[in-house]
Amino acid sequence: MSNDFATVPEQEPDIAAIQAAAARIRPFVRRTPVVSDESLDEQFGGRLFFKCENLQRGGAFKLRGASNAICSLTEALAARGVATHSSGNHGAALALAARQRGIPAVVVMPENSSAVKLAAVRSHGAEVILCPPGRIAREAALAALIARRELHVIHPYDDYRVIAGQGTACLELIEEHPEMDIVLAPVGGGGLLSGTAIAARGLLRRVRVIGVEPEQADDAWRSFKSGERVLLDAPDTVADGLRSSLGARNFPIIRRCVDDIVRVSEDGILRATRLVLERLKLLVEPSAAVVVAALLEERLDIRGRNVGVILSGGNVDLETARWLRSSP
Amino acid sequence: MSNDFATVPEQEPDIAAIQAAAARIRPFVRRTPVVSDESLDEQFGGRLFFKCENLQRGGAFKLRGASNAICSLTEALAARGVATHSSGNHGAALALAARQRGIPAVVVMPENSSAVKLAAVRSHGAEVILCPPGRIAREAALAALIARRELHVIHPYDDYRVIAGQGTACLELIEEHPEMDIVLAPVGGGGLLSGTAIAARGLLRRVRVIGVEPEQADDAWRSFKSGERVLLDAPDTVADGLRSSLGARNFPIIRRCVDDIVRVSEDGILRATRLVLERLKLLVEPSAAVVVAALLEERLDIRGRNVGVILSGGNVDLETARWLRSSP
Repeated sequence: MSNDFATVPEQEPDIAAIQAAAARIRPFVRRTPVVSDESLDEQFGGRLFFKCENLQRGGAFKLRGASNAICSLTEALAARGVATHSSGNHGAALALAARQRGIPAVVVMPENSSAVKLAAVRSHGAEVILCPPGRIAREAALAALIARRELHVIHPYDDYRVIAGQGTACLELIEEHPEMDIVLAPVGGGGLLSGTAIAARGLLRRVRVIGVEPEQADDAWRSFKSGERVLLDAPDTVADGLRSSLGARNFPIIRRCVDDIVRVSEDGILRATRLVLERLKLLVEPSAAVVVAALLEERLDIRGRNVGVILSGGNVDLETARWLRSSP
Repeated sequence: MSNDFATVPEQEPDIAAIQAAAARIRPFVRRTPVVSDESLDEQFGGRLFFKCENLQRGGAFKLRGASNAICSLTEALAARGVATHSSGNHGAALALAARQRGIPAVVVMPENSSAVKLAAVRSHGAEVILCPPGRIAREAALAALIARRELHVIHPYDDYRVIAGQGTACLELIEEHPEMDIVLAPVGGGGLLSGTAIAARGLLRRVRVIGVEPEQADDAWRSFKSGERVLLDAPDTVADGLRSSLGARNFPIIRRCVDDIVRVSEDGILRATRLVLERLKLLVEPSAAVVVAALLEERLDIRGRNVGVILSGGNVDLETARWLRSSP
């Protein structure tokens, strides 16, 4: 892949890069609404502004980063086609963005991906290659794929173009609500959190940016607290979009621009997912609901604050989502 | 109640009345987002614009009409307090609007109202009086109440102030998307449909307005087709917000301004409710999903058209909603 790097930015994005990404992807992504609910504000004591990336095309924020990466490709790189590994949402987003540009896409996905996510990737015209679950297996499968075929890899989070794209959700949120004191985002591989942090710090002087992670996949928390990037192989959490470990490019940004990372329990995640459905009338993935879980479990104090929440996605397999069926 | 009518408008609202209502209620209601989804557009062959009144304060469009009525009251009328009967959403909305103005509200509700709706009305500080289910019983209970106490009645739909308020949802939709060919709304008592029809016809010359109703509560369809207002007592449908029969003030407006009324099956309603959740990531009530059911069941041809859909509400009791638990 070394020849790719000549054309791929190897400099951390700043706020200008996120603004450029926003202009580049505007025709391909939705400007998602921001919603509020007085009953939740009362319950948690702050004013909450939910940026609804579950209403994004493809059902998640991932289209922002994928579109920015695909739109940034030279004609020569684009002609080779693109590949990635993904537990689902990035794969679907890359497939959608690639189809928009008319280039082939191949997505390596774990065999235990939800049926909804597999179907979404295929419905956008991408080729799917299944691999065993876990970080090591999926990285090996992607490496084997690009050894055979000359595809350009767009990593789901460890890529500056992707990071800049993901930051555009927070950019839009703060453009509409510049009064934000705190911004909350889930953290898996760190694409969303690093982009969010760059956007928030670039626009607001005194904002706090906090990442939220499942206790059962707490590599980002461990990395943040120890100062050393910790990798987990196949953590088990209902927040399936957050099983990835922090990327090499994401970690330094998060160390520098994020104020804290807090962890939430599985039970809290399930209760939060239901709460968002019941009160906000929004279907979100458990991976998106972790930020609300942090409020429910009092891991964060937001009293008197204006708080932006990136609701990252809403791709749920209704047939198997046990949290829909009964109170946890 | 005859003394009330001197201060209560007894003239059908026109587009100017709806615009005045919009200005009056602006501080109290949300401007709800309009969302679209390419996969649904592809499935149904038209471009669909969903006005998300499930994201309205109180979880339904009803706050629009209730706020307009409450804001229109003279000080003397307001001081007496207000009363209504409601299967739930109008009751909650009236309670919220009354609390905003600092006046008492009493809501007559059927004993079989969902727990979520009862709790919502009470949480807004209104007094609840339970009555047996069915139109006749609830009207009798309200009549008995106002015979005892000097409350001003704000009917859930058979009231021109309420009709004007409900029309503001369609007004906002068309302000943002003036290219609409067809507007679809559910019909129960006819408050939303009559307000929607006045707004759509007032703003657009060639728009078609179509109401959708459950087959099992088809009084509006029967009335529309026969030219005589037909009343049903206690029809049974999962679309619990649509069990009411057309109001006396609503029927003439609907006859004059609505192009057609179509009916949908119970199975179609349940499938549509799930489809909206899965694709739009929005929790809507079965009463709101009837319009999507009309598309699923091919009761309407929208090919090549721009279609506005009023998604009327999202108040669902997650504990008892059987359509969440399994595919119908």
